[in-house]
Amino acid sequence: MVNVVVNGIGTIGKRVAEAVKKQDDMTLYGLSDVSQNGGLRTVLSEDGPLHGTDLYASNNDGLEQLEDQGFYVNGLLEDSLDEVDVVVDCTPPGIDEMNKENLYAPNNVKAIFQGGAPKDIAPVAFNADANYDDARGEDFVKVVSCNTTSLSRTMSVVDEEFGINNAVASLVRRGGDIPQDSRGPINSTVPVTDVPSHHGPDVQAVMPDLEIKTLAVKVPVTYGHVHMVNVELESKPEDEEVKEAFRSQPRVDLVKAGEGYDSTGKVHEKMRDLHSERSDMPNAAVWEETVTVEDSTLYWIHMVHQESIVVPDNIDAIRAMFEMEDKESSIRKTDKVLGLR
Amino acid sequence: MVNVVVNGIGTIGKRVAEAVKKQDDMTLYGLSDVSQNGGLRTVLSEDGPLHGTDLYASNNDGLEQLEDQGFYVNGLLEDSLDEVDVVVDCTPPGIDEMNKENLYAPNNVKAIFQGGAPKDIAPVAFNADANYDDARGEDFVKVVSCNTTSLSRTMSVVDEEFGINNAVASLVRRGGDIPQDSRGPINSTVPVTDVPSHHGPDVQAVMPDLEIKTLAVKVPVTYGHVHMVNVELESKPEDEEVKEAFRSQPRVDLVKAGEGYDSTGKVHEKMRDLHSERSDMPNAAVWEETVTVEDSTLYWIHMVHQESIVVPDNIDAIRAMFEMEDKESSIRKTDKVLGLR
Amino acid sequence: MVNVVVNGIGTIGKRVAEAVKKQDDMTLYGLSDVSQNGGLRTVLSEDGPLHGTDLYASNNDGLEQLEDQGFYVNGLLEDSLDEVDVVVDCTPPGIDEMNKENLYAPNNVKAIFQGGAPKDIAPVAFNADANYDDARGEDFVKVVSCNTTSLSRTMSVVDEEFGINNAVASLVRRGGDIPQDSRGPINSTVPVTDVPSHHGPDVQAVMPDLEIKTLAVKVPVTYGHVHMVNVELESKPEDEEVKEAFRSQPRVDLVKAGEGYDSTGKVHEKMRDLHSERSDMPNAAVWEETVTVEDSTLYWIHMVHQESIVVPDNIDAIRAMFEMEDKESSIRKTDKVLGLR
Amino acid sequence: MVNVVVNGIGTIGKRVAEAVKKQDDMTLYGLSDVSQNGGLRTVLSEDGPLHGTDLYASNNDGLEQLEDQGFYVNGLLEDSLDEVDVVVDCTPPGIDEMNKENLYAPNNVKAIFQGGAPKDIAPVAFNADANYDDARGEDFVKVVSCNTTSLSRTMSVVDEEFGINNAVASLVRRGGDIPQDSRGPINSTVPVTDVPSHHGPDVQAVMPDLEIKTLAVKVPVTYGHVHMVNVELESKPEDEEVKEAFRSQPRVDLVKAGEGYDSTGKVHEKMRDLHSERSDMPNAAVWEETVTVEDSTLYWIHMVHQESIVVPDNIDAIRAMFEMEDKESSIRKTDKVLGLR
Repeated sequence: MVNVVVNGIGTIGKRVAEAVKKQDDMTLYGLSDVSQNGGLRTVLSEDGPLHGTDLYASNNDGLEQLEDQGFYVNGLLEDSLDEVDVVVDCTPPGIDEMNKENLYAPNNVKAIFQGGAPKDIAPVAFNADANYDDARGEDFVKVVSCNTTSLSRTMSVVDEEFGINNAVASLVRRGGDIPQDSRGPINSTVPVTDVPSHHGPDVQAVMPDLEIKTLAVKVPVTYGHVHMVNVELESKPEDEEVKEAFRSQPRVDLVKAGEGYDSTGKVHEKMRDLHSERSDMPNAAVWEETVTVEDSTLYWIHMVHQESIVVPDNIDAIRAMFEMEDKESSIRKTDKVLGLR
Repeated sequence: MVNVVVNGIGTIGKRVAEAVKKQDDMTLYGLSDVSQNGGLRTVLSEDGPLHGTDLYASNNDGLEQLEDQGFYVNGLLEDSLDEVDVVVDCTPPGIDEMNKENLYAPNNVKAIFQGGAPKDIAPVAFNADANYDDARGEDFVKVVSCNTTSLSRTMSVVDEEFGINNAVASLVRRGGDIPQDSRGPINSTVPVTDVPSHHGPDVQAVMPDLEIKTLAVKVPVTYGHVHMVNVELESKPEDEEVKEAFRSQPRVDLVKAGEGYDSTGKVHEKMRDLHSERSDMPNAAVWEETVTVEDSTLYWIHMVHQESIVVPDNIDAIRAMFEMEDKESSIRKTDKVLGLR
Repeated sequence: MVNVVVNGIGTIGKRVAEAVKKQDDMTLYGLSDVSQNGGLRTVLSEDGPLHGTDLYASNNDGLEQLEDQGFYVNGLLEDSLDEVDVVVDCTPPGIDEMNKENLYAPNNVKAIFQGGAPKDIAPVAFNADANYDDARGEDFVKVVSCNTTSLSRTMSVVDEEFGINNAVASLVRRGGDIPQDSRGPINSTVPVTDVPSHHGPDVQAVMPDLEIKTLAVKVPVTYGHVHMVNVELESKPEDEEVKEAFRSQPRVDLVKAGEGYDSTGKVHEKMRDLHSERSDMPNAAVWEETVTVEDSTLYWIHMVHQESIVVPDNIDAIRAMFEMEDKESSIRKTDKVLGLR
Repeated sequence: MVNVVVNGIGTIGKRVAEAVKKQDDMTLYGLSDVSQNGGLRTVLSEDGPLHGTDLYASNNDGLEQLEDQGFYVNGLLEDSLDEVDVVVDCTPPGIDEMNKENLYAPNNVKAIFQGGAPKDIAPVAFNADANYDDARGEDFVKVVSCNTTSLSRTMSVVDEEFGINNAVASLVRRGGDIPQDSRGPINSTVPVTDVPSHHGPDVQAVMPDLEIKTLAVKVPVTYGHVHMVNVELESKPEDEEVKEAFRSQPRVDLVKAGEGYDSTGKVHEKMRDLHSERSDMPNAAVWEETVTVEDSTLYWIHMVHQESIVVPDNIDAIRAMFEMEDKESSIRKTDKVLGLR
């Protein structure tokens, strides 16, 4: 059994830790962090989903701080690394790089990094649907960001089925996650003035042959990015063929605005009504009515739940790095355990 | 076993229906509505928590409309009422009154109404903690609103323990629920210009001897009302005694801002991290640090999850109306089944 | 002197009325409406910018209602129409059409309609920069919407200078204007599921030869739409050439994010700091850093102040309909009086 | 003529500078700052209201930075202080204190500080209505914060006319100003967990004999705080008498929700419609319908424009410190020049 530590228990970290714990072919060895946040405290609390999991401190200051905040700490992460096979690093940008150099590489521990990490932190930018096999046997893998993940999932099936000449995606990003309420913007739309934005090259790290450009703004919402997409195709499929392609793709859902799911708020409510844990939606959601082909241009609008979409890919990355399963069976296994379609 | 129908599957209705289904001493006989909304569709869908529950139409137009929208409808609610013991009516204000007159009273079916219903729709304004016994054997009961429920729960224990001379609560209300995104206000604070506001008399319908006045505004948030409270006491307790009183009260929680729960967004996240269904919080949450006594004045600030706080009281109301349990055992039973503290 | 009445004193109406009043070649004959709103009351108040302007009622009910609300009403609009040359109709969609049929056409009064009016209400869809001359001598003209106006202004200069093969604009629309705080969405992004959206054909009503497609979402902000644009050009200009073209276009401004204007909120503040009346910004604002050409694709992001951008075009439309000035001199005159660049 | 420098050209600083410039008995000698922001750039730009005003750097780093950002800087503030009579310091908390010690005191320059400064920075906490004379001849004065100013204005007239036994105000604060869009909270209400909050003692710094307690939350809006107030009176006036008292108080306005001004958004629009510069509202606005006396308790709800309410008090403070006018004539003069009622 692969022993997994999750380092950095924020939005992504706490979700990945729980997902690891649910798998039957890997073990959640422990959590690691440097300071309290509401999430860390809750998941470890008596009624919390990770109650009883060992907590380590990522450094000496963290050890002191966590103990001052009333946590029981099992010791320094470094001192336990010989029992650990892989660390899923969900620390903030900057910290991840230092961790690789000072902690993971010297101790011969594999590591997975997240979308905010620098490009060169790992030889593989990973998305399970698009390039699972590239991560086989690797020591360091970067799971791409939420926006990139949703674009990789949707673009890969469209490219395969209909051929993409070039693609443009306009991203409308959420300002902060639900508990990140000290972030803005309030009553403002903030353009990303690097045009095209970095999201295009990020997708190309996963799909090197794809011509894709992106633009982005940030708006005052907390649950979900929205992407408006226009793609020049090599072929001229019917709308219905494209919808069918999306339906066939794992981790992509079609939702109908006309059935009462006509906004990110109402899709959020759908996940609540389905009792999805934390109201998460790891699948990308394409609004079915928006899938439209005119001449050879394909348009659609999809929604990305920024907090959870990369969780299954982190699990698949572990399996690929330890060559535990092939792509299809890993995706199937992960989705079944996590309750995805 | 008491047969329960929930009429009006919106924010409250879908939650009460699920709560009824989980109890072992009552049966969810069916749902009733007149038209699609996202929630109705989701809870009845293959993966939904009420999949398989019978759906009735509240009237002839509703029958046609629901069928047009692709629902299988078991028939008109009226035609099945002889098998129904009680209807929990969660329809919009105005409709509830018509339903009582045309549907429930003529068919000798008991009914529970919600906080938006007119005062005189039922002889009892109900809050389980404050006046459970008043509903014993009654045919019509009104469960009071979310704001009133939180005030009744907190005021009743404070009044009992320390004596309230008079109380003022300033309410900061959410604009709309998560899926009610067509409601405002965006970037605006809206005062309720009836001063004192109706919430004071609403509490007095439950606690007739309490001197309480309220003022209110509406703000652009979707999860949680916040109340700022100042109360003149007959005694001068220590802060800690008041906290202890709140801890002893069912359905009231203390949360610590200093532990990372310092806003409604972060308390919302706490409920998500605890895997509370729909991220609901049926308990009122008092910020522990705010509980302060100066001279004989007690201050505190609490948070109300407007979507779920009245759900347990609806269950208790059923038990009271059919004299199935006494107050303590009903509250205990409900809280256990719903996973409340 | 042309006698102008503005009918419907909302967001657009009050601004057009004030702009008419400032011109020296037309007369603001009066306002017309059916009911109070804050804006009507304020502009007519003692300190208001339209104090002393005659107020008419658009119909009999309106007469009664306005008088009940404490306004002095000069009579029915219809009874004064023989002294009126043109009505700028800023009433809500649906009302505008009825007004044309029942009020303006039978009384031989010219009329200008706004962007929400149906396509066929007038033979000309008007934007001063793009097709001033089409409105010469016409009886009925429709000034296109705020989004369409900004696209017409920017696209027309780009097309003229560099040739547009085809264009895609992704619109991020504000939820409501500053006083329209009962509108949503709160904490939600709402996609327009008609894809491509109506904005493309709206631009084509002004520029029939332009290939343009649009997609749109709505977000919780009150001041300004934002458009993310990608355009296939016939030529390959340098970035600077495109910026120069935008600078040469009346009613288009370049703003630099790097100078502290990096969001709609900060551009709003710029207009406040310039003492622009109502903090209005009738020019479209292109973020200079976003103007980027790669191969033959041009990208940019611009901002549209939805409340004021069509005001100068309404003034120009009057001049065109009465053949008072040619295009260049009307635009120059309007911009000088309104203090635009 | 008193020579005035404004140091720190943010929300308050730019407004005070313009207000100083408009007075006929003082001279705006210059501005001082350390770095660009959109406001500084705009007000000094060719079309800006402070075009041509001398700009100084508050320190050596600031000199370099401002010049790098393209500003013409007249030199270090310190080197010109012998020509300056008073500095209105609008720098962030922390900086103000250092400036007093290192810059103003050693150079024998009087200074005015703002509400965020520490209590002991000046011997006088100033509100023109409440304690103008206390500042006569002083070298250092602190103008109290926006919330405190609105409470001082309203409480002082109520106390004088009807006697206040004790008062409680519940504050609903805006998250950030219009251009401060990187601040939150988005979709969250944040309680101030120090209960009672600091605003009560802040008012008592101005009105030492007033019994007042406050509680506060922060919400996602950008224009205006709202206060819900309940006051125990020594007398039992009619509602109308209290309204009349508010009408008699300078810098307090009554607004009627029923006339279309029923939210902060709509009051904001009122100021826009009146062409108030920057849509500012230096008067506190009491919603007339909310002024209510029951027994001896007085309730009301008022709104505070956080950006501009302290501007006239800064001007009055200058006059008091140099004994230029008595209270009534200074207030009258300031209000006339600024266009207040």
